[in-house]
Amino acid sequence: MSQEKIITRGPEFFPNIPRINYEGSDSKNPLSFKWYNPVQKVGGKTMKEHLRFAISYWHTMQGEGRDIFGNPTVVRPWNTASDAKQRAADTANAAFEFFTKIDAGYYCFHDADVIEEAGNLRESNERIDFIVGILEELQTETGIKLLWNTTNLFSNPRFMAGAATNPDASVVAYAAAKVKKMLEVGSKLGAENYVFWGGREGYETLMNTDMQRELDHMAKFLFGAVDYAKKIGFDAQFLIEPKAMEPSKHQYDHDAATCLNFLREYGLMDYFKLNIEANHATLAGHSFEHELTVASNAGMLGSVDSNRGDVLLGWDTDQFAIEFYDTARAMIVILNQGGLGSGGLNFDAKLRRGSTDLEDLFIAHIGSMDAFAVGLLVAEKYLARHKEILANRYNSFDSGIGEQFESDNIDFEAFENHALNNPEPVTISGKQELLENEFNGILNDVMKAA
Amino acid sequence: MSQEKIITRGPEFFPNIPRINYEGSDSKNPLSFKWYNPVQKVGGKTMKEHLRFAISYWHTMQGEGRDIFGNPTVVRPWNTASDAKQRAADTANAAFEFFTKIDAGYYCFHDADVIEEAGNLRESNERIDFIVGILEELQTETGIKLLWNTTNLFSNPRFMAGAATNPDASVVAYAAAKVKKMLEVGSKLGAENYVFWGGREGYETLMNTDMQRELDHMAKFLFGAVDYAKKIGFDAQFLIEPKAMEPSKHQYDHDAATCLNFLREYGLMDYFKLNIEANHATLAGHSFEHELTVASNAGMLGSVDSNRGDVLLGWDTDQFAIEFYDTARAMIVILNQGGLGSGGLNFDAKLRRGSTDLEDLFIAHIGSMDAFAVGLLVAEKYLARHKEILANRYNSFDSGIGEQFESDNIDFEAFENHALNNPEPVTISGKQELLENEFNGILNDVMKAA
Amino acid sequence: MSQEKIITRGPEFFPNIPRINYEGSDSKNPLSFKWYNPVQKVGGKTMKEHLRFAISYWHTMQGEGRDIFGNPTVVRPWNTASDAKQRAADTANAAFEFFTKIDAGYYCFHDADVIEEAGNLRESNERIDFIVGILEELQTETGIKLLWNTTNLFSNPRFMAGAATNPDASVVAYAAAKVKKMLEVGSKLGAENYVFWGGREGYETLMNTDMQRELDHMAKFLFGAVDYAKKIGFDAQFLIEPKAMEPSKHQYDHDAATCLNFLREYGLMDYFKLNIEANHATLAGHSFEHELTVASNAGMLGSVDSNRGDVLLGWDTDQFAIEFYDTARAMIVILNQGGLGSGGLNFDAKLRRGSTDLEDLFIAHIGSMDAFAVGLLVAEKYLARHKEILANRYNSFDSGIGEQFESDNIDFEAFENHALNNPEPVTISGKQELLENEFNGILNDVMKAA
Amino acid sequence: MSQEKIITRGPEFFPNIPRINYEGSDSKNPLSFKWYNPVQKVGGKTMKEHLRFAISYWHTMQGEGRDIFGNPTVVRPWNTASDAKQRAADTANAAFEFFTKIDAGYYCFHDADVIEEAGNLRESNERIDFIVGILEELQTETGIKLLWNTTNLFSNPRFMAGAATNPDASVVAYAAAKVKKMLEVGSKLGAENYVFWGGREGYETLMNTDMQRELDHMAKFLFGAVDYAKKIGFDAQFLIEPKAMEPSKHQYDHDAATCLNFLREYGLMDYFKLNIEANHATLAGHSFEHELTVASNAGMLGSVDSNRGDVLLGWDTDQFAIEFYDTARAMIVILNQGGLGSGGLNFDAKLRRGSTDLEDLFIAHIGSMDAFAVGLLVAEKYLARHKEILANRYNSFDSGIGEQFESDNIDFEAFENHALNNPEPVTISGKQELLENEFNGILNDVMKAA
Repeated sequence: MSQEKIITRGPEFFPNIPRINYEGSDSKNPLSFKWYNPVQKVGGKTMKEHLRFAISYWHTMQGEGRDIFGNPTVVRPWNTASDAKQRAADTANAAFEFFTKIDAGYYCFHDADVIEEAGNLRESNERIDFIVGILEELQTETGIKLLWNTTNLFSNPRFMAGAATNPDASVVAYAAAKVKKMLEVGSKLGAENYVFWGGREGYETLMNTDMQRELDHMAKFLFGAVDYAKKIGFDAQFLIEPKAMEPSKHQYDHDAATCLNFLREYGLMDYFKLNIEANHATLAGHSFEHELTVASNAGMLGSVDSNRGDVLLGWDTDQFAIEFYDTARAMIVILNQGGLGSGGLNFDAKLRRGSTDLEDLFIAHIGSMDAFAVGLLVAEKYLARHKEILANRYNSFDSGIGEQFESDNIDFEAFENHALNNPEPVTISGKQELLENEFNGILNDVMKAA
Repeated sequence: MSQEKIITRGPEFFPNIPRINYEGSDSKNPLSFKWYNPVQKVGGKTMKEHLRFAISYWHTMQGEGRDIFGNPTVVRPWNTASDAKQRAADTANAAFEFFTKIDAGYYCFHDADVIEEAGNLRESNERIDFIVGILEELQTETGIKLLWNTTNLFSNPRFMAGAATNPDASVVAYAAAKVKKMLEVGSKLGAENYVFWGGREGYETLMNTDMQRELDHMAKFLFGAVDYAKKIGFDAQFLIEPKAMEPSKHQYDHDAATCLNFLREYGLMDYFKLNIEANHATLAGHSFEHELTVASNAGMLGSVDSNRGDVLLGWDTDQFAIEFYDTARAMIVILNQGGLGSGGLNFDAKLRRGSTDLEDLFIAHIGSMDAFAVGLLVAEKYLARHKEILANRYNSFDSGIGEQFESDNIDFEAFENHALNNPEPVTISGKQELLENEFNGILNDVMKAA
Repeated sequence: MSQEKIITRGPEFFPNIPRINYEGSDSKNPLSFKWYNPVQKVGGKTMKEHLRFAISYWHTMQGEGRDIFGNPTVVRPWNTASDAKQRAADTANAAFEFFTKIDAGYYCFHDADVIEEAGNLRESNERIDFIVGILEELQTETGIKLLWNTTNLFSNPRFMAGAATNPDASVVAYAAAKVKKMLEVGSKLGAENYVFWGGREGYETLMNTDMQRELDHMAKFLFGAVDYAKKIGFDAQFLIEPKAMEPSKHQYDHDAATCLNFLREYGLMDYFKLNIEANHATLAGHSFEHELTVASNAGMLGSVDSNRGDVLLGWDTDQFAIEFYDTARAMIVILNQGGLGSGGLNFDAKLRRGSTDLEDLFIAHIGSMDAFAVGLLVAEKYLARHKEILANRYNSFDSGIGEQFESDNIDFEAFENHALNNPEPVTISGKQELLENEFNGILNDVMKAA
Repeated sequence: MSQEKIITRGPEFFPNIPRINYEGSDSKNPLSFKWYNPVQKVGGKTMKEHLRFAISYWHTMQGEGRDIFGNPTVVRPWNTASDAKQRAADTANAAFEFFTKIDAGYYCFHDADVIEEAGNLRESNERIDFIVGILEELQTETGIKLLWNTTNLFSNPRFMAGAATNPDASVVAYAAAKVKKMLEVGSKLGAENYVFWGGREGYETLMNTDMQRELDHMAKFLFGAVDYAKKIGFDAQFLIEPKAMEPSKHQYDHDAATCLNFLREYGLMDYFKLNIEANHATLAGHSFEHELTVASNAGMLGSVDSNRGDVLLGWDTDQFAIEFYDTARAMIVILNQGGLGSGGLNFDAKLRRGSTDLEDLFIAHIGSMDAFAVGLLVAEKYLARHKEILANRYNSFDSGIGEQFESDNIDFEAFENHALNNPEPVTISGKQELLENEFNGILNDVMKAA
């Protein structure tokens, strides 16, 4: 049982939705958890401590079912006031009602999610101060924490050609001002991380783009953010979120390896980690676990945007992850590195445009929270076996020429000598199909035990 | 318990592999079925009757781990004799040993799989007669049946620019001769279906291709096959297998809808059904269940190549289907149309190139047969609920203007009248996330009951 | 020289842009045609008669630089009035100023482009009547014609689950009412074609979709449109526009072959042709010329949406076609079928979001009109050679067994006889690289002569 | 006129093909250059010096038209001897006859291309010594140079699970021995570069792969190669060739950025550059010029595999680059960095499988050499304009807050101050369509002048 209390200021926005409870895997109640039991211990930590779920303010509170060919399909009751501040306050109340009812410990937002931008920077900042006051109060009342905040540097037309990488210096300055404000907000609200997603840091055509100069600017901009955070004592983990394309034709933070290359080139490795999103992985042509592994191997897996994409479509569908194979593969990498530290699983996922009932918001989150709970349980059982498999497969490096290879410099002459004076190497089965079958066996064990 | 006997003529080729038995879902024996219980009844039929598994001669017996950048990784013991006929006989013996040990009821082959083509057509045909005699005997001894046979019209360079669609009439004649022979073989071996896969029926460039003339030729060729089969009393179901590309840049049988369009255009709908392959679906940008549904809706789903592709890769990976979501979605369509009739589930799947142990052949088939068994169990539970969902969602067509729409011709004036005199339609949630959660619930029920 | 007069009612909206004239290929004036010379004869017709360019009202007049992550980047001067009718009138004036200055003979629109939908159907229809009166007057004054109109059945949330294929009969009725109105509008404005693009006719998930029932509805709806058009004497060519996905996950009009299959199944072939779009072709995994060829071979290529997509991106980028190879390959198919009849080349293309100058609208159209002019010139030279190539390549069907194959039914026994008694067929080079080189040679000849 | 002499030892293999000469762009002789004039000066260097064409031994001499579904379509006359050494010698003679007749200055090979591997390493090495003696002689006689050599670490089954990254240490040793031999060969033949392409350095499934350990091994292996080359005084430029996938499901050298990240991580930046291939770029979801630019910006663009892929297909089609837009975009990046230094344009391109005439080898190379000649001419004209465009677009960084941004550390407070006290930035058109039109104008100028 968790101790946040339901927000009651103003009217309830989800009056027909009770707090969601764990009822076990055989429950047929759509408004209950089947596998996600916040207090259940898995390897020494509770599920809630492992999974650190965060709700995305933009999709869950501000998503309105718009797509590139269609107008909004839902008008949320918290989004109807004509006054921007009232709308923002109502939305915050609704948000914390949702957070507590779904029993998420964390949330995430862009500045533009929590209150509409005003006509000029000064007034926008004042609006932000207004809503941040309310959010702070709601956090205190409920115990819900801010996993991360970020700055929207992509919606406003001023950023159409980039923010930190804009060819116009005055836009770069504007972007810096907006990031500065959000660093202050993050600090005030105790954000555990701060995210940079560069949806407009990229290009439409190389014909009008000086890529090298833009990347130099991007690095400089990030150093500026690091410095300013230090100055104000904001010690959140900074995160970069890779995405290959969309909205830009090419985005500089293409995938995990590209981001790492950039961070290494400019000496930024100590100040950043990565926020890996499932759907962004597939847009880059990678599996989710590939991107998680690349980041994790470099010690740079900071947090996760836990959604899924439709691999047959070429845009970000931001669906809720629901298949046990997907969530298990992700949790294996996360568990293998001992968890996400200050990071968490942020649902960067939205309802399908046709899911227009208010309760669909709960149903979608429940399904994905359950799927990650199953994924966690599978991962926990799988990891020991996985380590054994790898230890066996690479054991030729534990002695002889293999050990020599790993410990010394490789000496091509000695290696040639070895090859000339030993029989042809024999092929050793990789046993992929066996491992796939074993995975199903572990899923069986988990499902039966749940 | 099934009654085929193990083939013992000549040496055993899998001496260390016992007949594979069902041991239940908690068995940890990799050489046992966990969910596939041939005699278990599901909705009035046994699992074996539902699933009608067939083994692909080309992958399972002739697959050698070649890829476009690599030489074979395995040399099978049945493939070592220097004489083509001896090699073919050994392979047939090994094949039937495999079929019976894995307890598949069916197998499938191309002419080129069962015996190597000779230097000329006459001699090739003699070779085929030789091996067909042996296959017939083995079928009789074991009770294993031929799900389908087909003609390889793509490997030999004579077919590089097509078989039925080759710009050289003498190649078309040659292709006809080869198909003629295989129709006779199918007839002799009691094949239940005969498959056309047109890997070279397509083009590399439109610059040198008269697409219309080639399609006219293809239709004429198929009519020829229909006529000849009738003449020799071979009454197998003819099947066309869609594939979008590979080896050709564009293949005429691109996907299910394209095949249907072709069959309709030329008046061939009565003589053919479709053989739908999972990996070919994804190469065409479709989900497997989409292609199955398109074929099934047209009454044209005849048989299935039950593999899976890697959706992040652009070629046919022909992996064994192993994930329960995939197999369940396929089985839903199949069960919904009352089964595959004379068709079956042919494993057009091959070991990963690095899976070089002989036992891997068994392990891979076991895993996929188990996955389809789970898929069948899920499908059976899911279908009743599915029909209820659809009945509810479309119930506005059961009365009023909807019923009128379905029963009469649509009258735009009456409909405008209705629209002008009724309130704006309200949006109705499609409940996609709820349905996805329910699917996991059904998987839970199936896993627990198994 | 063409005789339409510049519209001067109200203020000019492009006061700094003169009428665009042909200045020849060496002109460096960005506001001139380099290759498109409306009056130049190519094979008996003028370029203007061949190309029948049409301007897309939605992109050119209503495009505001919105994308899925970004707000509008431009506010057009004709789009600022607060009153919907005034805004529509201003836009119409600006549109015809643009059409005449760019010297396009045609335009195209959806109902929602020419005037904003009102709160209910009756009022929306009244608004349409208002703007159609103005459009009619402008057409008369300028001689600009309506290539096609269409109904927007995808933006309004009422259509989120389809229009003709909506599970709610009242939405189907609403869609019928809207199409009815636009058929009347097409009739009044003398539209030469009427287009159906079913962006919402498809599905998000098969879990809640009865595909067969929806397709039955779609067919019935189209018959309704055919009947009503006949009733009011509107004899425009009806067109279906294939698109694979976006906005829907799967769209029923996936590609040309899928549309043809649908039209054949329901007996609609006599009433419809296809409107093929370049970008939709690549989204379906096809080349533009492939889709054009499929439609043309079936006698069903009615009109063309002449844009281009970024083949490395998975969404509709709707870029202006600018590369000579692309435009030439399209014009080859069009010229080969003797032109588009009542169809034309509609620029379903939009400015890049960052191209915010008013003059960019002209520059983009000029570039693409020039590119199609070059394409036309190349196509004209290429076709004779192309026919010769094909005649040679397939000449084995002009005598002997080939001729027999084309004229009679194919007799597999006779063909086997031929194959047994003739030498192995020899491979004949397809000469693809030679043909590609020749294409560059033709481009050279055209560029030099221009 | 170039001074290499035609090889006449043994029979001519291309007796009907003369030396290919430049005849000007209006020539209709398919066996002549239309634009590639080796001695023509472009900006101070001859075309031959700029383009440094190299012929790929594997495709041009050893390509036999095999694909994954088909057997060879050609048997080359130099490949018929039963003795491996005789076959190798004949092939070398044919190769140098081809190189001199096509007037390429360079060639490239893998060990396995120049002579078939023997049954054991010692004998394989002896074979290599034999053929290298002949190649050395042929180089001396003709003046043709070795652009680069490399080691085939992917075809033999021993490498099925990797070479440097194989889980079996004895395979790593074997790979080292093979690379050692080829470094010696490179040294002996004066290779100007040495290439590493890691087709098997990657994984099929993460289930059996320790990615981090494998990458550590890869780095160590490369250091070994660097050390050994130094030891034997082989000072060629080392190159890594990115490829995303195929044959492996995932390859560690995914794209340029991934390779750079790897080289930076392990401290290998000083010893390697990149060999960028067009088709590998598109397989990774990038444009060719993107990958060239990423490499070039890092000072790491060493050489180029100048082919093209079919962007609608998901495998390496290795087609000859023929379209002027593609070759121009590549040459712009190359010219912008002042050429490729010791690198060159290697035709990693093969005939279409159906192009079976011997002359097709010449025709394909001629077409692509011509296309690169046009590309060079366009690039030369384009670059000055391009620099002007970029200088203008970014000129806000040449003074004021922009200059401060580039010269100092960014101070977020100062930047906020600037943003607060200046008007909202205005959007500035990126003029993409204008630049695209200008590109066509430059192509016009080049075509007319040629």
